[in-house]
Amino acid sequence: MSLSKKPYKGTRDFFPEDKRIRDYLFQKMKETADLYAYESYDGPLLEEVELYKAKSGEELINDQIYSFHDRGERFVAIRPEMTPTVARMVAQVHKEVSKPIRWFSIPNLYRYERPQRGRLREHWQFNVDIFGAPETMGELEILQIAVSLMESFGATSEHFEILINDREIVDLIFNKVLKSEGDLSLKLYKLVDRYKKLSREKFNEQLEQLNLSVESKDAFLTYLSLSSIDELKKFLESNKLETEGFSLFKLGEHLEKLHIDEFVKYDPSIVRGLDYYTGIVFEIFDKNPENRRAICGGGSYANILKIFNENPMPGVGFGLGDVTLRDFLTTHSLLPDLSKPVTKIFLSTQDEKGLPYILKLAKDLRKEGISVQTHLETLKMNKVFNLAEKKGAEFVGILGTNEIESGVIQIKKLSDKNQKDILISNIEEIKGFLK
Amino acid sequence: MSLSKKPYKGTRDFFPEDKRIRDYLFQKMKETADLYAYESYDGPLLEEVELYKAKSGEELINDQIYSFHDRGERFVAIRPEMTPTVARMVAQVHKEVSKPIRWFSIPNLYRYERPQRGRLREHWQFNVDIFGAPETMGELEILQIAVSLMESFGATSEHFEILINDREIVDLIFNKVLKSEGDLSLKLYKLVDRYKKLSREKFNEQLEQLNLSVESKDAFLTYLSLSSIDELKKFLESNKLETEGFSLFKLGEHLEKLHIDEFVKYDPSIVRGLDYYTGIVFEIFDKNPENRRAICGGGSYANILKIFNENPMPGVGFGLGDVTLRDFLTTHSLLPDLSKPVTKIFLSTQDEKGLPYILKLAKDLRKEGISVQTHLETLKMNKVFNLAEKKGAEFVGILGTNEIESGVIQIKKLSDKNQKDILISNIEEIKGFLK
Repeated sequence: MSLSKKPYKGTRDFFPEDKRIRDYLFQKMKETADLYAYESYDGPLLEEVELYKAKSGEELINDQIYSFHDRGERFVAIRPEMTPTVARMVAQVHKEVSKPIRWFSIPNLYRYERPQRGRLREHWQFNVDIFGAPETMGELEILQIAVSLMESFGATSEHFEILINDREIVDLIFNKVLKSEGDLSLKLYKLVDRYKKLSREKFNEQLEQLNLSVESKDAFLTYLSLSSIDELKKFLESNKLETEGFSLFKLGEHLEKLHIDEFVKYDPSIVRGLDYYTGIVFEIFDKNPENRRAICGGGSYANILKIFNENPMPGVGFGLGDVTLRDFLTTHSLLPDLSKPVTKIFLSTQDEKGLPYILKLAKDLRKEGISVQTHLETLKMNKVFNLAEKKGAEFVGILGTNEIESGVIQIKKLSDKNQKDILISNIEEIKGFLK
Repeated sequence: MSLSKKPYKGTRDFFPEDKRIRDYLFQKMKETADLYAYESYDGPLLEEVELYKAKSGEELINDQIYSFHDRGERFVAIRPEMTPTVARMVAQVHKEVSKPIRWFSIPNLYRYERPQRGRLREHWQFNVDIFGAPETMGELEILQIAVSLMESFGATSEHFEILINDREIVDLIFNKVLKSEGDLSLKLYKLVDRYKKLSREKFNEQLEQLNLSVESKDAFLTYLSLSSIDELKKFLESNKLETEGFSLFKLGEHLEKLHIDEFVKYDPSIVRGLDYYTGIVFEIFDKNPENRRAICGGGSYANILKIFNENPMPGVGFGLGDVTLRDFLTTHSLLPDLSKPVTKIFLSTQDEKGLPYILKLAKDLRKEGISVQTHLETLKMNKVFNLAEKKGAEFVGILGTNEIESGVIQIKKLSDKNQKDILISNIEEIKGFLK
């Protein structure tokens, strides 16, 4: 039996065209991070499982994580997300580094998933985090970066929206209006998180199981029906709750001034699961009804350094995966044509004796920073252009049998067939023609 | 007990400075690959263990690989090297893609090692491979790329050398001179591979265990003492063996013409283990006696597609690891100073009311592609310069309390203290001053 040529289930082979698309996505991520002066970092692929246990929900640890014991009986996992790693790293240096700390990374992550559209076992994720910034300002910057990235691909408010909420306000409502605490509060969060995924029947069924009072149930459903920040404010006021001091309200004015309010929409069902978020939470959604899924999720988390016994330091960040991003860009035809590689010149000869000359010329041109593809065996004239075209060359250089002695190479631009015979030793002239 | 802040044993946290160094190394790798028109690819981090079993020695599978069963009972491994993956991918497409196929990647790899200088459990490796090129020409190009990469860091023949051998010739000698085949031949290869690592006593001891005839043992030791291609040729001739048709000899003239002969040195002890190599094999060595280790290894492998029941196709390639490369560059002081990040301008204000103006200016400048760092809270005048300096800013912009109304920002270049007051709305003038 021969070996399988396929990649492991739920993972991808990045052949050059796919890799060029991935590189393009990553390049935009890096450029965006640079514009905001975020510094690149990375951590190891493997972390001890304890780190994830301390931070994440049990579901992730039990069902979704790739974990195993190493040969020294350390219990390790392939990272399923980057936040625990970045928190661990910040915990090491936060006392010496001036604030705010602005970091980004593009790690590959593993989750044991049933592969489906938008979900694979291996994906890459753009992670952007700011630590130690004043709460609302950090949140504002993180939202700005998410928008800037989307805009760098040519996406507009026609294509995507940012659904936003504030867990401080949700906590307040659960606590003061629904009179819920501890376990019940967690169950309510879980249910809110599933609000859009469940049918209305299923949702009501699960709501019944919580045995809320009639008043609490009504208030809960009213909360979930809120569709704007104004409505939320009125809801708080009608329940005699404060409306001062919340990031969600303080953000408003800034979002307007920076013209990103057009992307942002209040959504009471966005809570980002049972995660470690403490303030603003948000998700970027594709507006296309055919591709209605979250491209990005993030928010504020104030207490993450606690698991390392360090003083709290506010963090805000988001993660944006390559699989859903590529789906989004494809859906809206926002990807450039990257089907071909790009090389400046394809050099070939029809004569074995010409090879050393071709190789020498290639060497000289590369010294000038020019990308050169040499065909390493003789090539018939009628095959040169087809092959050069396929290989993405802008120019071809052909050294014919008769030209070896005279040392003249014929260089042709593929797009307009403009051509010139140049002495193979005249690098300056060749360089000029290739411009 | 609090969680450990350290990374998993044998792996590294890449804080921004380390990450900048890694990015610098990777950038040079990509640029070099581009000059030779190699296309970037990548494969999954996990592969089924069968793939490595089919290709590699048992030692790697048994002791060094990170393997485990996934939740679906697939036996998988974190990739310890890239060649099996690239072979698997080439096997999928080689019938449709025009030759030669030129590919490169920079994957992270895992091996279960005892961490020590130059060896970690996680490292990155620049992998460059050419498939389907005429044998010697493919080998020549791969050697050229390795040299070009080293030269791109400013390394010269004072710093490194390429030790080279030809397994076809070694096979011939083992077979015809030492009369060895099969198992004995493998043992000889293993012993040659350890030649430099073992003390002379240990080596002789292990040689005795092979029970060679006196003549074979003498010939073996004579072979190992050869120190130039001329000596090798004479050795072959004195044993009445052919000297025609071997890549090692055909390469010579090309190496001279391309001026890379100065780096290349014949070394009979280079065989690249029991690996899958079939022709030229080579290793790049640091010439510094303090750091005498292989930075890079590679060679020709003609038969790798066989494990997929595909027709053979000649491949040549090398792998070059980031850990040994960085050690090499550090040893020879070839790394640039990357201790600080780089940002164009650091914007700050002394007044809460100034923040929205700073944010707006930052947004406008970023639209022009300028990297801007905003301090997200008020900052006293005497702290601005110190902080901006630390954060790698080239310019600072300060909006004082009195200037908010007049809308004038003071911009100062940190290197020469040259400064100018500019209207905060005059983006063109600010842009001009920042050039």
